[in-house]
This record gives sequence, structure tokens and C-alpha cells, in this order.
Amino acid sequence: MDKRKYAIGVDFGTESGRVVLIDVSDGAVISSAVHTYANGVIDDVVPETDVHLEPDWALQDPNDYLEVLKQAIPAVLKESGVDPEDVIGIGTDFTACTVVATKADGTPLCFLPQWREHPHAWVKLWKHHAAQPEANRLNGIAREMDRPWLDRYGGKISSEWFFPKVWHTLDEAPEIYEAADRFIEAADWIVWQLTGKETRSNCTAGYKAIWSKKDGFPSRAFLKALDPRLENVVDEKMSRDVQFLGERAGGLSETAARWTGLKPGIAVAVGNVDAHVSVPAVTVTEPGRMAIIMGTSNCHMVLSRQEHTVPGMCGYVDGGIIPGYFGYEAGQSCVGDNFAWFVETCVPADYDREAVDQGLTRHEVLEAKASQQSPGEHGLIALDWWNGNRSVLVDVDLTGLLVGATLATRPEDIYRALIEATAYGTRLIIETFEDSGIAVGEIVATGGLPDRNKLLMQIYADVTGREIDIAAATQTPALGSAMFGAVAAGEEAGGYETIAAASAAMANLRNEPYRPIPEHTEVYNQLYAEYLLLHDCFGRSANGVMKRLKRIRAQARE
Amino acid sequence: MDKRKYAIGVDFGTESGRVVLIDVSDGAVISSAVHTYANGVIDDVVPETDVHLEPDWALQDPNDYLEVLKQAIPAVLKESGVDPEDVIGIGTDFTACTVVATKADGTPLCFLPQWREHPHAWVKLWKHHAAQPEANRLNGIAREMDRPWLDRYGGKISSEWFFPKVWHTLDEAPEIYEAADRFIEAADWIVWQLTGKETRSNCTAGYKAIWSKKDGFPSRAFLKALDPRLENVVDEKMSRDVQFLGERAGGLSETAARWTGLKPGIAVAVGNVDAHVSVPAVTVTEPGRMAIIMGTSNCHMVLSRQEHTVPGMCGYVDGGIIPGYFGYEAGQSCVGDNFAWFVETCVPADYDREAVDQGLTRHEVLEAKASQQSPGEHGLIALDWWNGNRSVLVDVDLTGLLVGATLATRPEDIYRALIEATAYGTRLIIETFEDSGIAVGEIVATGGLPDRNKLLMQIYADVTGREIDIAAATQTPALGSAMFGAVAAGEEAGGYETIAAASAAMANLRNEPYRPIPEHTEVYNQLYAEYLLLHDCFGRSANGVMKRLKRIRAQARE
Repeated sequence: MDKRKYAIGVDFGTESGRVVLIDVSDGAVISSAVHTYANGVIDDVVPETDVHLEPDWALQDPNDYLEVLKQAIPAVLKESGVDPEDVIGIGTDFTACTVVATKADGTPLCFLPQWREHPHAWVKLWKHHAAQPEANRLNGIAREMDRPWLDRYGGKISSEWFFPKVWHTLDEAPEIYEAADRFIEAADWIVWQLTGKETRSNCTAGYKAIWSKKDGFPSRAFLKALDPRLENVVDEKMSRDVQFLGERAGGLSETAARWTGLKPGIAVAVGNVDAHVSVPAVTVTEPGRMAIIMGTSNCHMVLSRQEHTVPGMCGYVDGGIIPGYFGYEAGQSCVGDNFAWFVETCVPADYDREAVDQGLTRHEVLEAKASQQSPGEHGLIALDWWNGNRSVLVDVDLTGLLVGATLATRPEDIYRALIEATAYGTRLIIETFEDSGIAVGEIVATGGLPDRNKLLMQIYADVTGREIDIAAATQTPALGSAMFGAVAAGEEAGGYETIAAASAAMANLRNEPYRPIPEHTEVYNQLYAEYLLLHDCFGRSANGVMKRLKRIRAQARE
Repeated sequence: MDKRKYAIGVDFGTESGRVVLIDVSDGAVISSAVHTYANGVIDDVVPETDVHLEPDWALQDPNDYLEVLKQAIPAVLKESGVDPEDVIGIGTDFTACTVVATKADGTPLCFLPQWREHPHAWVKLWKHHAAQPEANRLNGIAREMDRPWLDRYGGKISSEWFFPKVWHTLDEAPEIYEAADRFIEAADWIVWQLTGKETRSNCTAGYKAIWSKKDGFPSRAFLKALDPRLENVVDEKMSRDVQFLGERAGGLSETAARWTGLKPGIAVAVGNVDAHVSVPAVTVTEPGRMAIIMGTSNCHMVLSRQEHTVPGMCGYVDGGIIPGYFGYEAGQSCVGDNFAWFVETCVPADYDREAVDQGLTRHEVLEAKASQQSPGEHGLIALDWWNGNRSVLVDVDLTGLLVGATLATRPEDIYRALIEATAYGTRLIIETFEDSGIAVGEIVATGGLPDRNKLLMQIYADVTGREIDIAAATQTPALGSAMFGAVAAGEEAGGYETIAAASAAMANLRNEPYRPIPEHTEVYNQLYAEYLLLHDCFGRSANGVMKRLKRIRAQARE
């Protein structure tokens, strides 16, 4: 083909949706647009009502998602000047697990006047944590019934995931459960809106709904053990018809074509998840390299031809990241969030004055000061558990620890120790993968942190002893989605046969890697040994101090 | 006697000397004056030279002490209008162990032109820490030779104490060691200046120079094992003639009478130490109550008729606090210092703005916020070892620890946790005394903290489960010194026969005790159990994380 072809990627985030229009030949971003959700994260009152929400609730309005299609896709088309005829496909990715309750035709219950004031009728966002009691009961029953799939998820199903959320609706609002014909991931719902046809992605089903290619969803017996009314939830309110990443979910519907200004019938990719879609966008399409998305939290993804049970992962899914491979996901629940907490909570006024004088942020002042010291010089070690530990301990009740403070300890010392703690946590995840037979050579990083903090990247290289390259793309998930759009379109339409081929052409690295400095790695090896000792002492041994403190705290707050 | 009599107390602190003129009948402060030392703490260069000092050095100028006598005593006389005829005695207390090297007539070597530029010729202040190598060697040899007196000092002689300091001089400056006819505590040197006669106090000898009534100083064999040149240090450069607290050291010399405006011949008390002299001044003259001096550090003192070996004390001395009792001293090396560190290092600008808006200090803002929560509510525990641990672990290499932090942790939570940590440390000291057979009922507190922080005092009462009263005096050591001056003068001169009698008449409590709140104590019992677990895990078990971090830090700084 001699004429340039384009694909559109849409990344549905927590606060907004981002659309990119990408040149399929080289991955160049031709235009991009962001649409901020009007209702954003709904955690106070149900919109247009005075129905108040509990503190652990987080809802969304599905209309906000549709507005991204209606506003931002026309905007990128207009800005780029590209002829819609030359846009061959569209791919999407979403936060997950974000669950929509709909009627049989896909209409969200919250669009219907009779349910509009009911909190359970709205979208339950990934960070809606009210289903913890259901998650606890589910995990208990799964352990009692010795469900083999528990191992796939590090031994624990999160309260953020699909079945706890649905069960929570049944528990608290059986009328909504009854009224819903479908419970569906927003990642799949948006594809339904684009194609007019309900599909389910193996990525969301696999990572969030306890599904696997081999065994399908949890058995009716298990679901019945949760609650007799859930026995047939899969057949009554979900679908066993699961499509795979890299496939074409369908063609763009006439309705969606009208919304977007795109041509009806162009390829729409199977729904994807923001973290997972980023992996090929950072050039990782084969085993041996780890993709880390570094932001408020860290997400570590790696591929393997074999199925391995790795302790304390978030999950693994056959073809869940790249077709043909088992996709393994691990995570750290508190990374950028921890630094932000420190910077907001623990930095004195004279540092603020320095920041103002030098035209820097607080983070930059701390980074500059912390950069002046050698590894080990501050004498501190932290356990990076301010928000619990996901991998490899899978324990939300663990808390943060700092040891080694003296009267000479300065804010930049603690700041550096917190960064190092997250690097030790990443090293432990890598070593756990390797111990389980999954090699991790180089690392490719993307997300908000790598660009913002050079010190942090060097520390990660030094601590892990591995070269870390940074993805060239700054809108990584949206690029990944566009790549899947090009794959859904296929080679004949001007796209690609495989995501590996798309990645080879469209994804790039900066090729300015952070390389471990051997003298630093040597000191960090010593410090990492201390981290491991503290990690096991507080996370694994019978010393349950952190949990007892949380229990005492809960009693004190009653 | 129908005419009022007065005593003078002089408290030689780290930065200044404070003089009070006290009514002997009731302890009322008639007048007081402070003289700030011109040379203060000498930790940068030797005065009038460019001889630089190492970071762990801290010297003083003995002339500063004389100026207190010459300036502040005349000032209180003048301000009070009291006739010098009616001043019956003078008592003094000093920081310790603060060591003066002198000629045979008491002239400090640093007063002599030939030695004036030599750092070792100056007074070594209590917090001069350069003798740590000598202290380490001394402790090693004492353990090898199984010296029974080690147990009297919690198993370890501090680098701050007498023999390490003298040995340090010998090691680094044998010419100064040679030139010195006397090494003497500043507490005793000042009495020499007042009386014209060298005396040694059982308090300084006992707590700081490994002396006891029963066994005297360490044996020649031991001193020879340190260094052959030290074999006869006691006979050559010290004195075995030790006087006891409560005794009259001598009469005021003609010279000192000229300096001060006082009458020659009035009683001068045996030299005392600031902490110990405070005990009768807070009404404690018998076993069963503990005096705690709460400031940058905490000093805990308690009396017993029997000799007990209590683990991890600073020391015990027969008659070292009150004649007729063994005086036991324990300590926490980082209390107010820890809160000050936190307030300077970890409090964000918006708290500063709140302080300014409300006309409060940062401490007061934090106290107000921390007061609003119930025990256990913040979910944190700290180990109060930012400056090592004196009692009961006697380990300077331990460091601070904070556990339980989450993204919701606020500055006031950490502030409160640090206060609680010092209270747990005090409770452990009390329980260690009680386990060793020394009862501790009520507590009497004095020092800088009790007046400044009501929350802290309530927490100490809640954590220890004991009533805490506050001494009425605000210039406690100076009052105690005046009381000993009145005892040195004796009943016939208008003073007292015993310090107990003086205390009964002259010392008062506020009688507004802090009483433990049972519901708080119940929660703190749970938290204290966690503190103990962490204390033993990091302070006693083979888990030497803190020490290894210090070692790595030292290597990184090389």
C-alpha cells in the first residue's frame, strides 16, 4: 500500500479518556485529545441526588465514557486532517476491574429513571473497595474448597475484582442484581458500544473474573457455595463466549460511526486493560524482558511460554497480554503514592522556600538533595507497605516501616529510603519470577515516574542490577490500543497480522538506558539483604505487629 | 531564730550558670540571675586560635564558670536586698562528667599561656564524645578481667565518663597528661574555687569515675591493663579522699568572698550533679517514688535501702543522691530532642501557617491535633532510639524505628507516636526497677517538658499507670543546690541537719497530679506489649539490622 494508514487508540483512565490517532507504519502520534469525565470519580453523592456514599465507594457514569467517543475521536480526526477512510481500526483499553450493570441491550441500569438514584446501578470503578467483606468470604470458601485457581492469583482474590463486586450488589441490592441482565467489564462494555455486539475479553475475564482458557469460570458448585442465587450467574448475567486479545471484536456500528466520525465497519479490537495493553507498546512481545508501569503504583508484566505458579502475583492468563504466551502480572500497591504522601506530609517549610527560590517542585528539591549521597549513606531502610503489599505477600493489612533514623536524619534521607524501598520490592518480585523459572533480563519502564525522577530510575537499575530502558511513547496505553486496532484490521487493510509485528514497527525505546553502577549494586546487595530480613520478619513470620496495630486502631476508632 | 536566713544555689548548665537566692524557711526564690557563658560550648575552634576541633569534641572555658560566681551571685544579692550576713550557705551542681585538667593549685591548664592553644588543656564537657575508642577498649578489658563494678553501670562505661576522658588525653596528648597535676570533675573544681581546698564528691566519683564506698576506685592492676602509664593515676592525679553529699566541703574562702560579695567562712556544700541534686528539690528523699527529669533526655532516679543490680542503669551509688540510700539512675537519651527533631524536620508548611494564624508554636499545633485522638487510633508504634538507647539496653548504636504508617498517617500521628515511645521506654525502666526489687509507686516530674506539654504528661500517666505530680519549683537544680547549702550550714546556723528535713521545708509539689485514665491504660497495655516485642526484636535478638545499617552508613561516608 502506498497510502498511509492510521489507527485510533482510546485509553479510558480514572479521571478522563485519552484518544490518539497513530500512523500505523511507524507509531507516530498524529494527534491526540483528552476528554475529562464530567462526573469523574463519584465518591460523595449519587449524581443529581442527595444519596450519600460510604467512604470506600467509588462509582462512575458510563455516559462519561460515551462522551470520550463522541468528543475526543472527532477532535483527533479534525486536528490531524486525516481522512476517516484511512483509519483502519480502533482499539480501546480501560481501567479494570470496572463493572457495569446493564439491561440485555447494553443499557446501563443507571441510565434508566427507575434506578438512577440507586448507587448499585452505577459503574463500580476499580477502586471501589466496599466489597471487601464479600472478597474475604469468597477467599475463605475458595480455601475451604481448595480451589486450584487461587494459586493463579497469588492465593487471594481482590475485593476490586469481578465476583466480589457482583456479590456485593446481590448482598446489598438484590433488586439491582435482579434487574441487571448483564454484569460486564467496562472494557468489554465500551467495545459493545462501538460494535453493537456483546463480547468478552480473555484479558479482563482472566485477570479479574477467575476465568482461564483451560477451565473457564469458577464452577457452579463454587458459585452456589458463595450464595445459592449466584449458582448460575455466569450463564444468566455474563457470557462464556470469550474472545482473545489480538482478535477483531467486530466492525464499527453505524451508531458508533455517527458518534465518532469514523467509517462504519472498520475493525474494533477486543477490549483490553490499561496496564496490559502497554506491554507491546513498550516493545515487550516475547519472554525475557519485564515491562514495568511506574506511577502511583507499580505494575510488573512478563511473558512466558510455560505455565508457572509464581507466589504472590496479581495473576497470570494464557494470552492475557500477548497471544501465544502466558502473561504474568505482579504489582506494588504504593509507589508514587508513597512519595506523594511523604512530600505532602513530611517536608518542612524551609524546603518549600528552597523550591520557590529555585523554581523547583518539592519533589525536585528532595531529588536534588538525595542525589548527592551515596547508597547506604543515610543509614535507613523502609518497607514500602504504606498501602499494604500486593506482590509477593498479597496482604493489604501490612503497613509502612522505617528503621535507622537518628537525630541527623533529614527529609531527603527518608525520601531516598522510600524510593529505595520500592526498588527493593521490585527486585524481590523479579527474583520471585526467576525462582519460579521465568527469566527477567532487561527492564523496560513506562508511566508517570520514569520521566520525572532520574534518581529513582538509577536506583532501580542499581538495586535490581539490570539495565532499564524507557519507552519512547508518553501515551503508552493509547498507543498500545491503537496497535491492537491495527492488528484487528489485519495486514490486508494496511495493519498487521500480529501484535509482535505491530510492536516491531510502531513501538520504540529511548535507547538511553539506565545502567547499574557496580559499586552501587554492591552496597545495595547488602541493604537488600536487610530489606529481605525485615520483609520476612514483618510480612511472613509470626510477628504480627502490623496487623495487631491495625486491629487496635480499628477498635480505637469505633 | 527569728531572723530569716538564706542559702544560695548555683546550677552550672551547658550554656549558662543560674544562681538563686532562697529563703531557707520555705524554699521561696527571693531572686535569681542567669549568666551566659562567653565561650559557651567550644566545638569549632579553640578560642583565640585557628585550632579546629573534630566533630565529636565539646570543650568549655573554666573562666566562664568563675564569671558566674563573679557576676550572678552579686546580682542576686543586689536584687534581693538581702544582707550577706543572713546568707548561711552555698551549694552548687554541675553538668557531669565534665573534666578539668589543672595544676596542683587548681589552675586549669588552659589558663597557662604555654597550653592555651592545646585542645586537651581545656575542659572536656559532658557531651565531648571523642573518647569512644578509649571507652570501647576500657569496656573490653573490664569484661575480660570480669570487673564486678561493670554491673553497677548497666554493663558499660560511657565514653562521656571520667576514665575514658582522661585516657583520651593520655593517648592523644601525653604532654598534657604529664603537665596536669590533677584531673577533676568541674563539680568538684568549682567547690575548690569556692573553698580554696580540693575535695571530691561521692556523687561524681560514684556515678562517673567507677568509685564506690565499699571498693573505692578501680584497682591499679586494672588501670595498668588499660595503659601502664595509668597505673597510679588515682594517686598521682586524683584523690582517694571522697566526701559525701550533705557534708560541708569547707568555708567560703576570702578570695571567693571577694568575687561574690558573700561572707567568708559560710558553708559550701560538697559538689553535686544537676540531675541528682534535683531529687530532694522535687520532694523525693525516700524509696518508693521516682523522680524523672524530663527534657532533651530523661533521667530517672529512685532510692533504695538495699543494693540491687538492676539491668541497664546508668549507675547506682551509696549516698549518691540522698545520704543513707543507694541512689539509682537510669536514663533515656532522646526525649525532647526527638520531638524537636521531628518538629524541625518533618512538619509541613501548612502546619506552620496554622501555627502563625493561631499564635502557637509548631509543638503546640501538633499537641492540639494529637490530643484529639484516642490511644491507638493512629496505628503507629515507634522505638525511641533516635540517639541510641541508654536504659535498659545500654546501646548507642541502636536507631529509631517507626512502624504502622499508611497513606492516611498525619504529622500529629507520628508526633504522638514519638511521645508514646518515650513513655513506653520509661515504663520499661520502671518495670525493670520493680523486677529487681526496687518499688516505684508515684512519679514526680520536673524539667523543661512537664510544663510545656500536657498531652505528654497525660500519656506518661496513662502508659505507666501511675500518678505523676509536677514539682512546684521551676529552677529545680538550683533550688536543690541551695538546699544542700542549707544542710552544709547546719541547724545551728539556721539551716537543716539533713537533706530530708530541708526537702520537707523547702520543696513543694503542684498537687495537680496527672492521673492515669483506666480506658487509656488498657489500650496502652496492648500497645506496650507490641513495643516490648519490637524492643526485644531490634534491641536484644540476633536481628542486628540497626547495627549493620550503621556499619554500611559508615562505609558509605568514608
